[in-house]
Amino acid sequence: MTYSRKLKITVPCSSSNIGPGFDVLGVTLSLYLTLDISIFEPSSVKENYNTEVVLTYSGEGKDGVPLSVEKNLITKTALYVLACNNIYGFTAPMTINIDNPIPMGRGLGSSGAAVVAGVMLGNVSGNLGLTKDRMLDYCLMIERHPDNVTAALMGGFIASYLRELNTDDTGIPHSEELEKKNDTINKFSSQIVPERIGYYIKLNWAKEIKAITIIPQFEVSTAEAREILPNDYNKNDVVFNLQRLAVLIMALSQSPPDADLICQAMQDKVHQPYRKQLIPGLSEIITNVKPTTHPGLLGICLSGAGPTILALATHNFDNISKTVIDMFAKENIETVVKVLDVVEDGAQVVETKYNNA
Amino acid sequence: MTYSRKLKITVPCSSSNIGPGFDVLGVTLSLYLTLDISIFEPSSVKENYNTEVVLTYSGEGKDGVPLSVEKNLITKTALYVLACNNIYGFTAPMTINIDNPIPMGRGLGSSGAAVVAGVMLGNVSGNLGLTKDRMLDYCLMIERHPDNVTAALMGGFIASYLRELNTDDTGIPHSEELEKKNDTINKFSSQIVPERIGYYIKLNWAKEIKAITIIPQFEVSTAEAREILPNDYNKNDVVFNLQRLAVLIMALSQSPPDADLICQAMQDKVHQPYRKQLIPGLSEIITNVKPTTHPGLLGICLSGAGPTILALATHNFDNISKTVIDMFAKENIETVVKVLDVVEDGAQVVETKYNNA
Repeated sequence: MTYSRKLKITVPCSSSNIGPGFDVLGVTLSLYLTLDISIFEPSSVKENYNTEVVLTYSGEGKDGVPLSVEKNLITKTALYVLACNNIYGFTAPMTINIDNPIPMGRGLGSSGAAVVAGVMLGNVSGNLGLTKDRMLDYCLMIERHPDNVTAALMGGFIASYLRELNTDDTGIPHSEELEKKNDTINKFSSQIVPERIGYYIKLNWAKEIKAITIIPQFEVSTAEAREILPNDYNKNDVVFNLQRLAVLIMALSQSPPDADLICQAMQDKVHQPYRKQLIPGLSEIITNVKPTTHPGLLGICLSGAGPTILALATHNFDNISKTVIDMFAKENIETVVKVLDVVEDGAQVVETKYNNA
Repeated sequence: MTYSRKLKITVPCSSSNIGPGFDVLGVTLSLYLTLDISIFEPSSVKENYNTEVVLTYSGEGKDGVPLSVEKNLITKTALYVLACNNIYGFTAPMTINIDNPIPMGRGLGSSGAAVVAGVMLGNVSGNLGLTKDRMLDYCLMIERHPDNVTAALMGGFIASYLRELNTDDTGIPHSEELEKKNDTINKFSSQIVPERIGYYIKLNWAKEIKAITIIPQFEVSTAEAREILPNDYNKNDVVFNLQRLAVLIMALSQSPPDADLICQAMQDKVHQPYRKQLIPGLSEIITNVKPTTHPGLLGICLSGAGPTILALATHNFDNISKTVIDMFAKENIETVVKVLDVVEDGAQVVETKYNNA
């Protein structure tokens, strides 16, 4: 069996919210989910092997991630994209080697990256010719919170939201419905994916600002982290976040960064206060780790729904990390630290080899 | 009596909120409150005329604005600033000719401009040497909503907020308290104005975007427009505004402007829906006047607490204005239209003449 195409899909991880920007801000970080794909000639294999797709997996979550095509989030997303385009299943045998260094359930956009990888896999394996803007529509049909998927797909520091639907867009399923139906993805053969579901805009990021991610060795369920939030917020808290969000967006674009301004503007009253009970140590970390005590630090917050702590800093990464590690250690929580760059490029697909052999 | 100094203070008007940016965004517009000040030699006048200050006033509100030094908002603010610096009253006779083209109670920052003018008057007449950053602290002691005063003082498109007070800052009076005490301003002789009460940051504004202000001929009380807002907001509305605010800030910086993006991002669920009942026609205007029907229009919103409508546009100002004028006319409301530039410079003081004659 010889392959006809070899492709590599890379999808970065991301951190969302960045303090006050709940469900809006995302920043793309230099840790990549990669798919090494070999697509084989249908004619070169025996008939009953025609559409066999073999998944292998290394990295984070390797003991728990399903490797059946219908259940793996990446491949079932690809099948959804294909089905929407009236292609029912992969049309050629493939091997897909997934390597995932993104810790799962930690607030670093691992499932968003998987959805993006799946949409790109569907696009490239079905030769659908979708633009990135169009791929975003598909991503948002699966994952209705746009912050991580938009960052992973588009790269950089980015603000995004779903548009409000017109009455003629009622065909858009909610994410929960999609998730339920996802195992029987062919039901979506008649799905018309509306265009421009998401609005996004790239923001500017000062190059000297790096992302220290201090990753506790336990998972927080995104669903639980959402359920814990109140239904209502008082006006003072709403205005508090609106004000800091506006200042933060601009402050993170300025060189050299103003640590006092950024630290103040990274405060949040919409999600972090409620998520403290899910993440031992969070309250102490956010309250006490400050630029005044840690030169080089600009601001600190929960990454996504947590439990990862995102510390933005220009230098002194070890010193800043150590303080946070020690605070988690007091709660008997082990951590892993990764110092990441903010990257301007989002998900990419590279055709590494194209054979007629 | 000869003057020793002639000064001109100019303070621009401003529009706050800009849709989703409730209590955070302000944009500075090319309509100026001006004070022409002549300061006389104390020695050149007879003793009992020593500290006489004569106000004259032209422009908007000329029949209602008090011209006594203790009651006029500009001069009583100046007296407050002087008192905080242990100067009890103006130290030289002055004439102050106030010209105010900013309509009052219409959401164009007229009282914010008056506060800024007063702080600058106090600074210059008392030779206090305050920086603009320090003058902002004084402004925010009088007016605790920073959006208009920060725009008027600093210029441009700006995001601002009050910092949360430390426990050692409990001496800061609330605005209501200050307002009550304002007639007896000398009580503030021992007032220590804390430093850096406000945080602000200048945002970028695309030069081709102009501000059409359609100004209904009735006033809305800012207090009433605040009281009408709910105490609590549901999470969806909070996220709605956070998302649009983030996108709007960046969208307004881009040339050429993307009308669809800006129009979508100027939507608001925090203040405008509640203020419709104070402003007949608002609902219809915001719902129906769109870039799709009005080329050149980018987005439309309430200016501040209203009733002025702010339409951001690149061209076709007459056509856009006419639609809004007609919608107000249907409600039997007369309007005045001013097409204004967004100006980068905030309040300024120019010493036009310095005599020893």
